[in-house]
Amino acid sequence: MRKVEIIGYGTCLPENTVEFDGQIRYRVGEGEKETQLTLAEKAAEKALKKAALSIEDIDLIVSASAVGVQPIPCTAALIHEKIAMGTDIPAMDINTTCTSFITAVDTISYLIDAGRYENVLIVSSELASCGLNPNQKESYELFSDGAAAVVLTGCTDSKSEILYGMQATWSEGVHATEIRGGLTGMHPRCHDESNKEDYLFDMKGIDVLSLAAKKLPLMFTAFLEHSSLTVNDIDCVVPHQASKALGLIMKKMNIPYEKYIDTVSLYGNMVSASVPVTFCNAIDEGRIQKGDVVLLCGTAAGLTTNFLAMRY
Amino acid sequence: MRKVEIIGYGTCLPENTVEFDGQIRYRVGEGEKETQLTLAEKAAEKALKKAALSIEDIDLIVSASAVGVQPIPCTAALIHEKIAMGTDIPAMDINTTCTSFITAVDTISYLIDAGRYENVLIVSSELASCGLNPNQKESYELFSDGAAAVVLTGCTDSKSEILYGMQATWSEGVHATEIRGGLTGMHPRCHDESNKEDYLFDMKGIDVLSLAAKKLPLMFTAFLEHSSLTVNDIDCVVPHQASKALGLIMKKMNIPYEKYIDTVSLYGNMVSASVPVTFCNAIDEGRIQKGDVVLLCGTAAGLTTNFLAMRY
Repeated sequence: MRKVEIIGYGTCLPENTVEFDGQIRYRVGEGEKETQLTLAEKAAEKALKKAALSIEDIDLIVSASAVGVQPIPCTAALIHEKIAMGTDIPAMDINTTCTSFITAVDTISYLIDAGRYENVLIVSSELASCGLNPNQKESYELFSDGAAAVVLTGCTDSKSEILYGMQATWSEGVHATEIRGGLTGMHPRCHDESNKEDYLFDMKGIDVLSLAAKKLPLMFTAFLEHSSLTVNDIDCVVPHQASKALGLIMKKMNIPYEKYIDTVSLYGNMVSASVPVTFCNAIDEGRIQKGDVVLLCGTAAGLTTNFLAMRY
Repeated sequence: MRKVEIIGYGTCLPENTVEFDGQIRYRVGEGEKETQLTLAEKAAEKALKKAALSIEDIDLIVSASAVGVQPIPCTAALIHEKIAMGTDIPAMDINTTCTSFITAVDTISYLIDAGRYENVLIVSSELASCGLNPNQKESYELFSDGAAAVVLTGCTDSKSEILYGMQATWSEGVHATEIRGGLTGMHPRCHDESNKEDYLFDMKGIDVLSLAAKKLPLMFTAFLEHSSLTVNDIDCVVPHQASKALGLIMKKMNIPYEKYIDTVSLYGNMVSASVPVTFCNAIDEGRIQKGDVVLLCGTAAGLTTNFLAMRY
């Protein structure tokens, strides 16, 4: 049990929306000034305000995003420039693609519990629209841009805590979800008409789904066993809003409809920002209350899967 | 004190070398099959062999590199494909640019100490040569490609331990070291003749040096105070091999010449791989012995600085 508490949270979605078959997607519009960093900055400011803290109270800034802003430096340093310039606050990136937020909370909670840091700002921000491929209808119509931030704090008098975390990576699926070009594997100077799709998001949806359907139920069974939790103990499941197949995967894991949140039609898949945006909205809507047992979970490119149970 | 021990380590440098004014640099040659991932794979295999472990004994794979191989998925998942396919081993990236290795050891040691993981493979691999700008002589002649890996393990009967860690980020220097293009800030499709240098490494050496010279001595004083260590207590300082100015910075910190390792002329700056490659070589050469107090330190793009004292 790691004694940590989320004492502040905030989200920021682009103002511009688009619709595909009645499904709403948030995307930074052409010529608008919103960027991955402005979304991150606004979400972070809201989280600090909710926590009634100023940036000087923060001991660590973590960027928990899939795709960065620049190859160098890390995204957390660029967020630092927006919100913490002039301070000594350390900044680091933690990345497991779509589940980066869960991995960051899971990992950093150990450092808070051990007393290394007291207040940690974790920010997930994504500009998915920047890398979508119009020739891949499924993913082109699925993703949204967005950001969310939380302040994770050590606690002694609250009931809040991390109950159990588990992660697995199955690299059989490593090429089922990727953007191949942009870094050392394929430098931007090689970009041309013949390979331009290599620099865009490429998802083999069926492959991801079949690998996830095969692996997830077994892993979830192991998770429940190791954590000594039952599905009944869990008040709310906050899954990564991966796709319209979310309900199918939840069914495979025997999680009843009333336990989990599915907002794919309202927000789409915001990559790493999906889990924290869904989480923050659920708190605001009263669906998650203080003291509730919440399961954050999701499947990410890799293929990586995370489960993290916490008492909120 | 976190009871962890490095029980295996290995490095891999490209076969090809180049020379500038008698200084050796390791760089993957044109048309050769070495990549960031083959370097990572070989370093990881050596580390496992030295630790007398097989991949099934590893509980977590961490990629602690500055620049990734692909925007999606994270580099650790791509390393997983090379060395751990078919296993469930979780994979994650930790990134603070050049000091990623130090941040990873510092962070993950808490998880090992708390019993979450027993054996963690940490890999830093870089293909710096891929993004150098021939028009910036200073950095063009400075960098090498390379990789290093360690197995970090929980220990009870060894004297090994992490003594103290400290990190700071000063985003006043965030644009002094960068590669601006390749991700969401500047998509590869925007690459053209007029902006091609934005997709290459850009270092304002004087700015980095003057900020580091101003900040580092104060931070090091604080580090010694908080860790209750003196310079005399430290047997060996393994600094990031940032540049030829390394000696200057060590002098500012009052670290005598015989305490620190300077191999810039032999290897250049290997980005995140510099610290672990220097560390591994120092062990092989007998300069670091079991039980020695070692200080890993370095300044990274961000500007981020890390200090980590451990009993090896």
